[in-house]
Amino acid sequence: MRTGEDLRALRERKPLVHQITNYVVMNETANATLALGALPVMAHAVEEVEEMASVAGSLVLNIGTLSQQWIEAMLLAAKAANAAGVPVVLDPVGAGATRFRTETAKRILAESHIAIVRGNAAELATLAGREAEIRGVESIGASDSGAELAAAAAVALGCVVAVTGPVDHVSDGEHGIAIRNGHELLGRVSGTGCMATAVTGCFAAVAPGRSFDAAAEALVAFGVAGEDAARDAKGPGTFHAGLYDALYNLDPKTIDSRAKVGE
Amino acid sequence: MRTGEDLRALRERKPLVHQITNYVVMNETANATLALGALPVMAHAVEEVEEMASVAGSLVLNIGTLSQQWIEAMLLAAKAANAAGVPVVLDPVGAGATRFRTETAKRILAESHIAIVRGNAAELATLAGREAEIRGVESIGASDSGAELAAAAAVALGCVVAVTGPVDHVSDGEHGIAIRNGHELLGRVSGTGCMATAVTGCFAAVAPGRSFDAAAEALVAFGVAGEDAARDAKGPGTFHAGLYDALYNLDPKTIDSRAKVGE
Amino acid sequence: MRTGEDLRALRERKPLVHQITNYVVMNETANATLALGALPVMAHAVEEVEEMASVAGSLVLNIGTLSQQWIEAMLLAAKAANAAGVPVVLDPVGAGATRFRTETAKRILAESHIAIVRGNAAELATLAGREAEIRGVESIGASDSGAELAAAAAVALGCVVAVTGPVDHVSDGEHGIAIRNGHELLGRVSGTGCMATAVTGCFAAVAPGRSFDAAAEALVAFGVAGEDAARDAKGPGTFHAGLYDALYNLDPKTIDSRAKVGE
Repeated sequence: MRTGEDLRALRERKPLVHQITNYVVMNETANATLALGALPVMAHAVEEVEEMASVAGSLVLNIGTLSQQWIEAMLLAAKAANAAGVPVVLDPVGAGATRFRTETAKRILAESHIAIVRGNAAELATLAGREAEIRGVESIGASDSGAELAAAAAVALGCVVAVTGPVDHVSDGEHGIAIRNGHELLGRVSGTGCMATAVTGCFAAVAPGRSFDAAAEALVAFGVAGEDAARDAKGPGTFHAGLYDALYNLDPKTIDSRAKVGE
Repeated sequence: MRTGEDLRALRERKPLVHQITNYVVMNETANATLALGALPVMAHAVEEVEEMASVAGSLVLNIGTLSQQWIEAMLLAAKAANAAGVPVVLDPVGAGATRFRTETAKRILAESHIAIVRGNAAELATLAGREAEIRGVESIGASDSGAELAAAAAVALGCVVAVTGPVDHVSDGEHGIAIRNGHELLGRVSGTGCMATAVTGCFAAVAPGRSFDAAAEALVAFGVAGEDAARDAKGPGTFHAGLYDALYNLDPKTIDSRAKVGE
Repeated sequence: MRTGEDLRALRERKPLVHQITNYVVMNETANATLALGALPVMAHAVEEVEEMASVAGSLVLNIGTLSQQWIEAMLLAAKAANAAGVPVVLDPVGAGATRFRTETAKRILAESHIAIVRGNAAELATLAGREAEIRGVESIGASDSGAELAAAAAVALGCVVAVTGPVDHVSDGEHGIAIRNGHELLGRVSGTGCMATAVTGCFAAVAPGRSFDAAAEALVAFGVAGEDAARDAKGPGTFHAGLYDALYNLDPKTIDSRAKVGE
């Protein structure tokens, strides 16, 4: 992990992060991407997703408000990204809550090569065939510990997995890391999970071939920003505004010393 | 009315509030729901709305940015909610502004059982067959007083009606209440009406069979939050951020004493 | 140019600004419109766009998240607006980034009468048949100077053109003006270009037949608001909230003296 160095590279290169995401958080993930220092673009038409994904630094897929046309666009974009060597990050929002979401997440994983899946415990447990409880898109509980779940899901899905919650866990199936950065107000703002996935896409764009690092660095950066945003927040509204300020003001020189990581 | 008690229950039980709403306010209504203490979920695909609505605490329908597929999804969800005993709240955004919106709102009311309709004077006057003027989605005027209109609409539509404006009026056709909480800056932020409807859905989820109470309590809670948010606001932007803080910080112990209610 | 006078008229008349825009910025452009003092309405269904556009003060089209149904709705709305004498403003988001966007922008320009096109240098260079580089929806460079580009595009497209960037340029093909208001944080918030277009629609609604003035006044007003918002901002999040405050607090009495305009 070299969060500061990769953050510096991200701000210099300003990679294009193509996002096919849900209606609820489009503005939020675009703003998180811009605040961090990368360039977001949202495009979901089947007529243009392949062209856009092929020239992007990374592709982020998020199934938070699905419909058939969007699934088709996600699959086309993922295949084009795969062909162009562009890393793809998946956020399986609500997998486990309805059959439609579970099956769609599995279909994307089966039909394309995903570099990183970022989700909550219930979503990843569902995809890994383990027990979990989900209420809407909120994880209520899973039978495995976070570290066990991340490792099991990484093996089952054949990619890097980031399970976020009060403590985040990243695994590539062999190695794992726990990240304790963040703040409880992140759970009171809609789309912070989706923003963490977008930030993962930003780091993936400057760390090709290092998906484990990208996933872990993104969660350190996002968690540190959450800690900074909480300092002056009076509730979720001012915290939300402060989160973009904090992403923008992240300091590459100090960020590695602020990472709360362990095994 | 027992706003504090129901707010406390809402925060303890964290009911799932399934929202099929418009593109403009999805993030805002999700954040208002989360800030208050419930769990929002947005899902609009015909493949999943019945499954989601059946397990929700309440269903909120909002016609602010309609299209045919979404209407179909709303009808499917409403019928599934009805079958499962889940209360349904309708926000007829822009009824009266175009025939398409007027007819869609009437169709939803005809084909499913709606517990509460929350709208502005022009929207409710349109649905109740009375005179009104609407500009886009903004009520410019109605010939009836708010109390008369709420009562007439409740009788015409056969459900609880909440007509919001400078003074809010809730009626079940027999009894009525006027609520004077709120602040004029609510009229300068897009989607505050939609947020009031989402908050109504939150209270409906913990007050089954007490739709009149749920509608009135929601408007008290949202109005008090508006008053709190206005205190440090410098305009609609800081007011908007402050509104989520205020919803999050609503105090169940004092909220009933702050209700400005009358007949 | 008489920005103060037109701003005062806008706040008195509260014109309806019908916007068919992208999913990312709908809330943001609605809030910018409301904060300034006009009334936004979003409607994109083919069943209602003609009815809505016909009664609006102006129509704003924005191709930021295209799909076929939306293109059809934009064309129907534009023709209805043309027939009713309602000015139409176009934001060709991402023209040059994919063939689909370039062709759609050209098709709208060919099949309807557009009063004002507002875009960045790469988008306008693409539409005017000149060289440019775009990354996603961000202009990376254009071979012409801003003033030359605005003039050439105005001639090529046969309408008023506003090219925004660090310095904004407005041209009707014969006359040109440069506007130096604004702040660099505008580039770190998603959708500020789209908001500038919405504000252009607001001014166009109160300045029929004076499209050049409307385009220039809108960029002065939006730029001055950006300067005000930057004063207390700690980053893009607080700047974003402050931008709505600043639009709301724009003073018609002083705004003309704050315009930084030249040739």
